[in-house]
Formats: sequence, structure tokens, C-alpha cells
Amino acid sequence: MFKKSAFSAFLLALLLCMSASVSLAQMMNKQASEEDLDREMIQTLFVTALSEGEAYKNLEYLCLKIGPRLSGSKGAEKAVAWTKKVMEDYGFDKVYLQDVMVPHWERGAKEEVSVISDGKKLMELSALAIGGSIATPPNGIEAEVVEVYSLEEVEELGRAGIEGKIVFYARAFQQKVIHTGAGYGGAVDQRSAGASKAAEFGAVGIVIRSVASNFDDNPHTGALRYRDDVPKIPAAALGVQSAMKLQEQLKKSPGTKLKMKINSKWFEDAPSHNVVGEIRGSEFPDEIIVVGGHIDSWDVSQGAHDDGAGCMQSIEVLRLFKEIGYKPKRTIRAVMFMNEENGLRGGLKYAELAVKNNEKHILALESDAGGFSPRGFGLSAPDAFIEKSRSWLPLFDPNTIVFFSKGGGGADIGPLHRETGTPMAGLSVDSQRMFDLHHAPTDNFDTVNQRELHLGAAAMASYVYLVDKYGGAE
Amino acid sequence: MFKKSAFSAFLLALLLCMSASVSLAQMMNKQASEEDLDREMIQTLFVTALSEGEAYKNLEYLCLKIGPRLSGSKGAEKAVAWTKKVMEDYGFDKVYLQDVMVPHWERGAKEEVSVISDGKKLMELSALAIGGSIATPPNGIEAEVVEVYSLEEVEELGRAGIEGKIVFYARAFQQKVIHTGAGYGGAVDQRSAGASKAAEFGAVGIVIRSVASNFDDNPHTGALRYRDDVPKIPAAALGVQSAMKLQEQLKKSPGTKLKMKINSKWFEDAPSHNVVGEIRGSEFPDEIIVVGGHIDSWDVSQGAHDDGAGCMQSIEVLRLFKEIGYKPKRTIRAVMFMNEENGLRGGLKYAELAVKNNEKHILALESDAGGFSPRGFGLSAPDAFIEKSRSWLPLFDPNTIVFFSKGGGGADIGPLHRETGTPMAGLSVDSQRMFDLHHAPTDNFDTVNQRELHLGAAAMASYVYLVDKYGGAE
Repeated sequence: MFKKSAFSAFLLALLLCMSASVSLAQMMNKQASEEDLDREMIQTLFVTALSEGEAYKNLEYLCLKIGPRLSGSKGAEKAVAWTKKVMEDYGFDKVYLQDVMVPHWERGAKEEVSVISDGKKLMELSALAIGGSIATPPNGIEAEVVEVYSLEEVEELGRAGIEGKIVFYARAFQQKVIHTGAGYGGAVDQRSAGASKAAEFGAVGIVIRSVASNFDDNPHTGALRYRDDVPKIPAAALGVQSAMKLQEQLKKSPGTKLKMKINSKWFEDAPSHNVVGEIRGSEFPDEIIVVGGHIDSWDVSQGAHDDGAGCMQSIEVLRLFKEIGYKPKRTIRAVMFMNEENGLRGGLKYAELAVKNNEKHILALESDAGGFSPRGFGLSAPDAFIEKSRSWLPLFDPNTIVFFSKGGGGADIGPLHRETGTPMAGLSVDSQRMFDLHHAPTDNFDTVNQRELHLGAAAMASYVYLVDKYGGAE
Repeated sequence: MFKKSAFSAFLLALLLCMSASVSLAQMMNKQASEEDLDREMIQTLFVTALSEGEAYKNLEYLCLKIGPRLSGSKGAEKAVAWTKKVMEDYGFDKVYLQDVMVPHWERGAKEEVSVISDGKKLMELSALAIGGSIATPPNGIEAEVVEVYSLEEVEELGRAGIEGKIVFYARAFQQKVIHTGAGYGGAVDQRSAGASKAAEFGAVGIVIRSVASNFDDNPHTGALRYRDDVPKIPAAALGVQSAMKLQEQLKKSPGTKLKMKINSKWFEDAPSHNVVGEIRGSEFPDEIIVVGGHIDSWDVSQGAHDDGAGCMQSIEVLRLFKEIGYKPKRTIRAVMFMNEENGLRGGLKYAELAVKNNEKHILALESDAGGFSPRGFGLSAPDAFIEKSRSWLPLFDPNTIVFFSKGGGGADIGPLHRETGTPMAGLSVDSQRMFDLHHAPTDNFDTVNQRELHLGAAAMASYVYLVDKYGGAE
């Protein structure tokens, strides 16, 4: 039996306990019903994208009617005008251009790389000038080849081993890693820094084994960076099969020469544009969520996965919201960044204007890993932001988004992230096929799967919806 | 201060507590180190598969040197002999055949489905006889078309609407679902049961819109099931574009006729084989883990994804173990099942022999969803088995296996599962591209990505390794 005071205390405790339970239950119900709503909204976004998505047909137009669009080219300007019109036709609240000056390099007539043995042309290799390479003299250059597997090996060979020669960087794409982004990262230094490293020791040119995950003979271009402290020398990428043929030839005849002819030309910087379309937020119009891709591409393909896909998905995010009647609280912007491939001027300009205009961005999301099936998001953001994002994982079908990992984002949104601290995210997709065609003549519309592209758009829209609804982590 | 007895009790508790902590720590260390070992082993399997895998080159041989292999065909028997030799050459402990009689149907000369309008041939449609269809008379049949969207609609139209006509099943693949297996399931009844349903009401033939996730004009074949209580009528699948053209034509001219000519033939059952290769278990040789695919394919393609991929992956699982020097405790069997496509006789025979020989299987794993990037496993197994499998998820890279879901397995291992209660699992892959080419003339080697195929093999090997090491749930 209780004493009276003890009994009162017991009753009080019981009441407190009950009322706590009630409000906890209410809270849990509320949370459950919000979760149901979110699940339903995400379901709607996926169903709409899969059954009535328009990113694929838009990408078809971009690839087949406009095609290659390297910065400074007519294709790039056509793509600017067309994406602006597409977003206007969808009735976005505001569509506008941001002026930006971009580098302007042209490949010129088809390049040539041939194996010369005993003074005669033995075979022509499948080759593309690396983007930004200077031209050779009109008749080309001819020099002995020295095969290396790393930039360090060039340093070890030194002037004695390198001077007057063409350096052949033969290191292969790293097959053993699961995510091909890392395999690419393990070989791409040859393309980006190989020319100047070789020039440092007196080389007259370089060729590289293409940074490619497959074994066909399509050469893969991409950008190089010339250092200011050494001469600029011409640079070309060989198809993987051609690189392997050259390796065999060098085993047989170590003194083999290469002939290289590159007909590229650098022009004055050209005027160009980022294209911005936005839906104005209903509650917090000054808080901005950016979703984007880059509208420029290399000159040798339609730039379907890199990055027509990301651009069309970004427009699709806004279109999906309009289609299903979702009115975002915050301002959602689709941005077609210009010049990711060889300068990043669009990304830099966007960040510069954001700072100048004192804009508040709460998330920047980029899709630039190809229009393949989505698997997750990579985030460069405060831990609390990442944790909050992870709490939304149960809302996604396990065949779509299964991780929010630390690290990642996108080249174009990098400057904004660095200048303003805006959390940035990159759509992480099934990466296995990207580097079969990345920067190669094969990155065309026929390699894109409609459903995969639309799943990516739906995943992006779902994440933007959640960040729009719940805000970033404070 | 403590009384002496209380102090003793305290000391005893302290000691117990400490010793418990020590053994708990030991146990946790042991668990951690086992987990490290497992992680390392799985890493090794993935690295080996990605950098030195042989499934892709084996699949190349199967597709390009052997090609189509419908049950009863010469191709099927060549594939039996060749896969036996492959496994023998790899030095598996035991390689043998299981005799099984299989159905033998041949397509004959190219079929024809044409639109007849005003007595004249308006256009020929892209078509394939559905597998197992009887032939038309040599000159074909000609009849008015009636368009329906379901088997139920045939019943509603009844004899008055159906008799003497060709029924056109026009229901499309369900695009809105994320996993295409479900989209396929939502339309395939037209192919499998449509003919007999139409025959029930007096139809003279059927055509269907191919059960395809994309929008090209390749017809997709597959099996039908004739009921015994109604006449057998000829059946063909139209390419999606052709089906849409027919729909348009029927809108314009409701009385449009079709001409159908199918030249197929049924033969006596033919002798054939399952092919079995095994590595004998070092500790529990009588406990068997089966990993398999089906070696037969439809006759119109190389059967690359369906299911050359699964067969080559299954062989690769055993080869990977040998390659890395892992000696399984249990017996691991790779089985090339015969006749999944139009009879399942191989799967039935395998189960029959397992029962007859009183074999103890602890897991049957099938890969028959295509050689695409792995995403998970679907399990038909007791809850405890599924839970145990799920406890291994943290061992996998999130770009590979992220779920063990309830439900799933494979057609070929289904009979074993049903007869013996053996837990069965199916490799679940990124499903977006499978039904673009499933049963179509396009299911060829050129659509297979080497890395995706090898990731699937590594995922299977990893799961088999874990079940081999830890056993099934008791």
C-alpha cells in the first residue's frame, strides 16, 4: 500500500507519463504521415518520369539536331539558344542567360599518328589530339618513341632519356576498382599533366593510351593543362588497341619512331553563356536550390552522357514539379553550365555572380556522371547535412538511391561550394559503362537508355523535393 | 564502507564482470577479425573478377562460336559439350552430364504477318512466331483483326466478337514500375495464355505487341502454353513499332485484315543434358551449394544475357575460388540447366535426381536476369536464412550488393526448392535494359559489358563464399 503522498506522486508520474506517451504518439503519427506523404510524392515523381518523362526526347534533339558543342563552337551557341527555349516553353517562371567568355580551341583537319619503322610508315594508329593541344608544324613531327608508365618515370629517365623524343604514356585504366571514377582517376594524370612533364625534360610530343575502361580502338580525348614554365608540345590520345599495337612494336623494335600531325588552332576567347531557368519558391524565394549539368561537350561526339544527360535531367526536375503540380517552397534553378570540359568558366561565373548578388544557396546538385541508373548521391557538405540526407534513404526503392556518401559533387558547382560553402551533391550512377565512351566518338544518343535516364531525373527530383521541403541542416 | 561479506560479493561481481568483459572483448575481436577476413576475401573476389575475369571471354565464345541454342537444336548440344570441356579444362573436381529429354520445336522459314486492306497487302509487319506456336497452313491464314487489351476483354467480347478473327493483344509493357521484371509480368500473360484464351472463343490466330521495355521494332518471342481443352491456333509477336502501326491502321479502317504465315514444326522429344561441374567440399562434401543458369536460349539471338551470362558467371564462381586458392568446406556445383525457355525439363530433372540420390542442398543460386550490374539477391528461404544473409550486407561495396529481399530465385532451381525446401536465391541486377532485348534478335554479345558481367560473378562468388563458410541458418 502507498502512503498518501507517495500515491499522489505515483499518480502524477503516471499522468505525466501518459501525457508524454500521447504527445509522443501524436508526434510519431505526424512523422509517420509526413513520411507517407514523402513516400507518395517520391513514388509519383518516379512513376511520372518513367511513364511520361521528356528528358530522353529532349536529349534526342540535343544529340541529333545539335550534336557536338565544344565551347566557342556554333554547336555550343545553338545548345544555349535551344535549352533557353525549351525552358521557356515549359513555362518556368524565369529563364535567362549569364554572359561568360570561354576558351575557343578547334581540332582542325583529322590528326595523324603513324608508326615509322626503317624510315617507312608501318601503320596508322587510331588517334585524337588531346583537347587544347597545340598543332604540330604542317608536315608533322617525327621522333623516336620512349614508353613510360608514369610521370615519375619521365623524371627518372631525365633529359638523357627524354630529350628530342615522343613520350608514350602507356599506363592502363585501373580495372580492379569497382567504381570506375576511381579507375579513371588512376590514369588520367597522363592526359592532363603528361605533356608538360615530358616537355620539362625536352620531349617534342606525347601520345597516351586512352583513359578508357573498355578495349576497343576509339581514342578518348579530354583536356590537358600546359604549364607556363615549359614549352608547349603536341599531345594525342591513342585508341587502346592502337596503344597495345604500339607497345608490341616497341618490344620488337625499340628504336621505332612515330609521326604525329595535329592541325588544331587556338582562337581568341569567345562570348558564351550559362543558361538558367527557375521556378520561384512560394515561401522562401530567396533560398535557392541549383540542379545542373554542363551544356558544352567535346567536339568528337554528341556528348550524350557527358553531359547532355545531366542537362536534360536538370530541366526535367523542374518540369516534373510542374507536371505533378508541386509548388516548391524554395526557388529551384536548372543551370546549363558552359565550358566544363576545357576551362570551367561557366561554373566560375555562376559562383562569381552568386557572391556578387548575395544569393543564398542551400544545395547545389549536379549530374555529370552519365545518364545511367542512379545508385546514390555523393555529398560535400557538413556532417549534419549528410546525416539528414541519410535519414531519407528508406524513402527510396533499393533499385534507385541507396547511399548518401561523403565526398563528391560536380566540377561546375565546385566554385559555388568553395566560394559560399553551399552543400554540393553529385548524382552517383552505375559507373560501369561511362568510361567506355567518355570523351570518345561513341558518346552518342544510341548508348542512352530511356528508363535509366529518367530514373536519374526522378532521383534528383526526389532529393530536391526533400531538401526543398525540410531545408538544409542548420 | 562495506561489510566483509558485502565486500566479497562486490569483488566477486567485479571479477565476474571483468572476466565477462574480457571474453566479450575476445569474442568481439574474433568477430571483428572474421569480419575483416570476410571483407578481404570479398575484396579479393571482386578485384580478381574485374582484373582477370574470364566469364566475358567465355561468353564471347558461347555467343559467337556457338550462338543460338534452343532445346533440341545442334547449338544446344554444342553448348553442352563445350561447357563440359570448359569446366574440365579448369580442373574442377568432377564434371558430368545429366540426361534429360527435351521438347523440340523449330521455327522454320521466316514467318510473315502482313496488313491487308481492300484485299491488298498494305505493309508487312516485323514479326516472330511465339515459341511453340503451331504452323499456319502453307499459304497462311487471312482474317479480320480484333484489338484487345487483356484476356478478360476477349471473354467480354465472347464468341460473337472473336470467332473467325485474329485477336491482336495490344497491351504495352508497364513502364511505370522501377524493376522491369514487374513491368514484364504485367504484360506477358498475353504471350503465354493469349492464344488459348482467344481459341476458347473461336479465334483463328493471335498477334501480340511484343513484351518489350523499349520502342524499337524488334519482335520478342518467348513461350506460349496451349491448353488441352481448346484448339491450338498460330501466334506471333509484333515489334512495338509494328504493333503501333497496326493500332493506327485499325483506327483508320476497323475492318482491316491480317495475313499470317508461320512455318514452325514440332518434333519428337530430343535427348539432351544438364551440365554439372563441381569442386568437392573439404569439410562437408555432402552439403551442396548450387550456382547455375540455363544453357538453352531462344533461336533468334545469341542468348547473351538470357542466359549465356548466368551460365558463364556460374562457371566463373568456381573458377574464381580455384584462382584465389579458396578451398570451400562444402561442395560447390555449377549447373548449366537445359530447357528453361520452353519446358523447364532440366530444372525438373535436376530436382528429381537430387531427391533420388538423397542429396543435401543448402543453397541454390541462379543468375537469369541478364549480365548487368548486380544490385542484390532475391531469396525464397526461411526468415532466419534471409536475416543471416542480411547481416552480411555491410561486407559489400554499395555499388554492388545492397539488398537481400524476400521472394525470388530462378526458374531452373524452382523445382529443387519446391521438392526439397532448399533455400533459393536469384541474382538481382540493374534491370533497366533486360527487356529491351529479352527474347529478341538483339540479345547478343555486343550488348554485354565486361565489367558488369564480372561484377555479377564476383557478387555471386561472395555470397556463395559466405554461405559456404557459415552454413545455412539451422
